Amino acid sequence: MKQEKAVVVFSGGQDSTTCLLWALTQYEEVYTVTFDYGQRHIEEIKCAEEIAEELNVPFKVLDMTLINQLSANALTRSDIAVTDAADGELPSTFVPGRNHLFLSFAAVYAQSIGARHIITGVCETDFSGYPDCRDVFVKALNVSINLAMDTSLEFQTPLMWLNKAETWKLADDLGALDFVRTKTLTCYEGVRGDGCGECPSCVLRKNGLTTYLEEKQGSVAQ
Amino acid sequence: MKQEKAVVVFSGGQDSTTCLLWALTQYEEVYTVTFDYGQRHIEEIKCAEEIAEELNVPFKVLDMTLINQLSANALTRSDIAVTDAADGELPSTFVPGRNHLFLSFAAVYAQSIGARHIITGVCETDFSGYPDCRDVFVKALNVSINLAMDTSLEFQTPLMWLNKAETWKLADDLGALDFVRTKTLTCYEGVRGDGCGECPSCVLRKNGLTTYLEEKQGSVAQ
Repeated sequence: MKQEKAVVVFSGGQDSTTCLLWALTQYEEVYTVTFDYGQRHIEEIKCAEEIAEELNVPFKVLDMTLINQLSANALTRSDIAVTDAADGELPSTFVPGRNHLFLSFAAVYAQSIGARHIITGVCETDFSGYPDCRDVFVKALNVSINLAMDTSLEFQTPLMWLNKAETWKLADDLGALDFVRTKTLTCYEGVRGDGCGECPSCVLRKNGLTTYLEEKQGSVAQ
Repeated sequence: MKQEKAVVVFSGGQDSTTCLLWALTQYEEVYTVTFDYGQRHIEEIKCAEEIAEELNVPFKVLDMTLINQLSANALTRSDIAVTDAADGELPSTFVPGRNHLFLSFAAVYAQSIGARHIITGVCETDFSGYPDCRDVFVKALNVSINLAMDTSLEFQTPLMWLNKAETWKLADDLGALDFVRTKTLTCYEGVRGDGCGECPSCVLRKNGLTTYLEEKQGSVAQ
């Protein structure tokens, strides 16, 4: 079953780490790529690098700071303070179509190193509000990327139809529930593992874990 | 007929300058965007900027040097000399899917400034060998871009099915044959207008112009 090379779009968060662990069971050679766009990212990139190192997979950072040239404030006025995403709103440097650009770069990178599969942890279930995280978009991009480079690349989205509880179950099925729980960083406050426990990202993660553990206990008890 | 905003992907060459002149007859507001990826480009960017200024259209340079992170030599070894394209081969910094990335950035830029049309001078007739200059690719990208941003952007490719002689005819029909002939830069040696006359780009341009002028003279003579 294990065959071919794959590139995992990897941020060191719960979702992409679960994708990475999944990919390691599916592909012979696995590479990771992360995007540095200059936001709240030093700690995330460090976390991602450490996980990649522990799992012994190559880790590449692509500098994507240029997308900030396209953000609302870069295009209009330069004196707007850059807000972060901690309050649950889109930051003022948010760029529509950003995931389109990231996945496109990941595909060009994959092609450059001879990898046929690109794995991304995007998910429609806990819908993020980003149209470029939808399944229909990923499939359309897959077509245009292959036409662009005359290739047969395949985007893989193992989490597309899972909710957070099911994503925890996948990590558990991979024998890595504790690994994902303790090593990853999803918290807006930059606290690894269970995080601050209060930001929207921590709440979503915690609720998913609680649901999964209750279901697991229930099915064991039956 | 004139309506809406448009962004022209603009390099200051014959094709994109003809597209810009065409766009000025079709759209109420026209913007230009050019890509700086650090190759043979200082003179091209200067030329493009001067033409935009003369035509009184806004000119934006997007820094795309990051695509060089994905070039063959950046990914493999750093001691390969960067060859230029003057000998007709792809330079060692060539990145497959580059036009996919450029058009994607142009679309995100267009969306950011409220422009609905993106005009590019890609052409299948004098086929460049780049799969991401084909009509089928541009149409596929158009779909994925609109899914990515939930938009109704339209890529326009006025030169897609024209040969070089027909592109000269279009410039002439727009009353701008001399403008395009004298102001634009397509020569590999960086010589504006009719150029060095010997590089592949100059030969293609000259043959097209000769063919067009002969046809024009023939039709006048009849």
